[in-house]
Amino acid sequence: MRIYDIINKKKRAEALTTEEINFVVSGFTHAEIPDYQISALLMAICLRGMNPDETAALTMAMVASGDTVDLSELGSVTVDKHSTGGVGDKTTLAVVPIVAACGIPIAKMSGRGLGHTGGTIDKLEAIPNFQTAIAPDDFMKIVKTHGLCIAGQSANLAPADKKLYALRDVTATVDSIPLIAASIMSKKIAAGADAILLDVKTGSGAFMKTSDDARELAKTMVEIGNNCGRKTAALITDMSAPLGYAIGNSLELQEVVQFLKGGATEKNLSDLCFALAENMLELSGIATAGSGALDMAKEAVYSGRALQKLKEMVNAQGGDPDDFENPLVAPHIATVTAKKSGYLTRTDTESIGVAAMMLGAGRKRPEDKIDYQAGIILKIKYGDYVKEGQPIAELHTNNKQSIPEASEKFLSSLLFTKDAKQSPPLIHEKIGL
Amino acid sequence: MRIYDIINKKKRAEALTTEEINFVVSGFTHAEIPDYQISALLMAICLRGMNPDETAALTMAMVASGDTVDLSELGSVTVDKHSTGGVGDKTTLAVVPIVAACGIPIAKMSGRGLGHTGGTIDKLEAIPNFQTAIAPDDFMKIVKTHGLCIAGQSANLAPADKKLYALRDVTATVDSIPLIAASIMSKKIAAGADAILLDVKTGSGAFMKTSDDARELAKTMVEIGNNCGRKTAALITDMSAPLGYAIGNSLELQEVVQFLKGGATEKNLSDLCFALAENMLELSGIATAGSGALDMAKEAVYSGRALQKLKEMVNAQGGDPDDFENPLVAPHIATVTAKKSGYLTRTDTESIGVAAMMLGAGRKRPEDKIDYQAGIILKIKYGDYVKEGQPIAELHTNNKQSIPEASEKFLSSLLFTKDAKQSPPLIHEKIGL
Repeated sequence: MRIYDIINKKKRAEALTTEEINFVVSGFTHAEIPDYQISALLMAICLRGMNPDETAALTMAMVASGDTVDLSELGSVTVDKHSTGGVGDKTTLAVVPIVAACGIPIAKMSGRGLGHTGGTIDKLEAIPNFQTAIAPDDFMKIVKTHGLCIAGQSANLAPADKKLYALRDVTATVDSIPLIAASIMSKKIAAGADAILLDVKTGSGAFMKTSDDARELAKTMVEIGNNCGRKTAALITDMSAPLGYAIGNSLELQEVVQFLKGGATEKNLSDLCFALAENMLELSGIATAGSGALDMAKEAVYSGRALQKLKEMVNAQGGDPDDFENPLVAPHIATVTAKKSGYLTRTDTESIGVAAMMLGAGRKRPEDKIDYQAGIILKIKYGDYVKEGQPIAELHTNNKQSIPEASEKFLSSLLFTKDAKQSPPLIHEKIGL
Repeated sequence: MRIYDIINKKKRAEALTTEEINFVVSGFTHAEIPDYQISALLMAICLRGMNPDETAALTMAMVASGDTVDLSELGSVTVDKHSTGGVGDKTTLAVVPIVAACGIPIAKMSGRGLGHTGGTIDKLEAIPNFQTAIAPDDFMKIVKTHGLCIAGQSANLAPADKKLYALRDVTATVDSIPLIAASIMSKKIAAGADAILLDVKTGSGAFMKTSDDARELAKTMVEIGNNCGRKTAALITDMSAPLGYAIGNSLELQEVVQFLKGGATEKNLSDLCFALAENMLELSGIATAGSGALDMAKEAVYSGRALQKLKEMVNAQGGDPDDFENPLVAPHIATVTAKKSGYLTRTDTESIGVAAMMLGAGRKRPEDKIDYQAGIILKIKYGDYVKEGQPIAELHTNNKQSIPEASEKFLSSLLFTKDAKQSPPLIHEKIGL
């Protein structure tokens, strides 16, 4: 088998065999095939595509490149979730405690944010002393004791994916649906859960800007998961506006705590958290469709058990749940006011994420440091009518200099119009449910 | 300017600017841009194409990466030719002396053969002691004195092309018409001639198997040449059968000498040599279309002046023209006979070239050594009727072991049929003439 022939085959839009894909992934992981041949192949894949068999083979080859987590000793069906990333998406922090409170153990590995999107691990690290780098044994011990743990991804989980992603990132070969799907699913499958619920975002704040792309990605991932023996389903959900009112790590954590306390939160956030929890419970088999999974999830919140689970987890991972009551607040808080009157009928949500990043809430480059207190509190939501001069957001930061540019970026992301417009549905579609 | 954005732009099938192409070629030549980014860009170019402006910019950027030859001191219009490579194509060895004998100086740089095709430099090196590595000053001195010189390509002529080609060769990105055209034309333009005649081969022994591809390549190269101020034209010529009866370095040289002596040769070879010479003379301006360029070329051959020019050149480059009379002959000569009776109506000419390579006449890898005496003498030509058992070829080699396999390869490349078939025209099309 020669890598040249494999590149040439894909260039001619032919399907690769499982043996060829294994040869590529293994050869690349062990540095037997040079980067320049892999990047040519990646570009050919971007432009020629991969069929479901190839995509599944790539996923499994990347799973096989490293360790896999064995969750069977938990003695229960396990369920995982994954979001393709958005602005203000703090649902994992709420949903994991809800599902755990319903009796389904969650041993979750999460990632960090980059660019306009946030990451669950960053949000948790806004809690002083919270540990996300946890040894495998301790990770399992926390899940066994408390029913939940959220840790950073182990370095040896799908290392081929990590290496491939680094190459894709510098060769403009990231935005290929089969490559994205295989990358996400290889990590989810290696992480060991029996069932996987995918939250595929679509809209101005998502990586998949169009419904068609989101649907294709969702279908591709669901097919991979099911082919690999994991019960997999996806919700395609709206990211044309931020989720909830908070963007930024500590601010989002506060919003989650408020929600789990049963307090008032934005409807799009609470609705999505309950929908995700409901579908995870159904996928896990603890509840069947229509048999009260949503009620179970609501009861877990309104009884306070979900918040209690979150506190247990924070405690087990080195943090102090009391910090929820008196969180650190950024020293500089600037109010942004509306420049004209009208209905908020369009938000460039990616730009809102970038504005939050400018304030310090996110990373432009992977090596950048996060300002955990930084971010944006939205005072209006999609569809609201505002009057000129009305406060529409608070910008929080430790870096006062960042405020003018972030403020401008934020304002430029909003469109106010004379006429009202209905907001898009929260859940666009369900795949595999 | 960032290479990432340039790759991404080409991936989206957008045209690159001249500045972007200069950035890529200069960055790659100076090792400031890594191979893995260039190979991703090369694959995107293969699959997305380049428009004429991009192709011209790429050519000129590769010309600018190294030295250019200044032929102005020759005090005359200069003309060059290039063949895209075929089997038995020894036309350069005949045409250069013919044109020089007509008073147009030829300062030519040629290449070596690889795979099923031969190269002019290899054929000349079949002459004992013939020098092809000639210092620039000596090169010009020989041209000034004798009106012709054929040397190997200077190492610093379009070095970016050399480096890019090496990467294309291992990343399955060779067969892109804009990349092929820019590669050929960058070397021709750097080599300094005022006029360039291209011989673009089409058919089973050519790199361009179809007329459409050959036409596109020819048009692309003619456009580049004319855009760069060189009077450029192309003949699209037939390579569905070998040119002449000899394949192999010394054997082809003998065939050329025989032709220049006015002896009997295959019509396809003599017709093509005269057509190339005629068009080169017209491009040079010494003759205008229809005003006797063909007669000039014929007179140069039949008067013996062309052979005299070849002898002068051989002498000036260290060889002994007397070797033409008593060439070395391979120790093993095997006769191949027809396995059935019929008309020869199809030849897989690339396979004939490979059979010659197996005998030692060519290189599988660039580092392979050539057996100058090795090759094939064809005893029949396209369209001939043969009887079972009739000798159809002689295989010459220093390596007796190679004969059975080469013989089998040769025989498998010929199709004999009950009915006769007309041979294809020698010159399919003229571009820019």
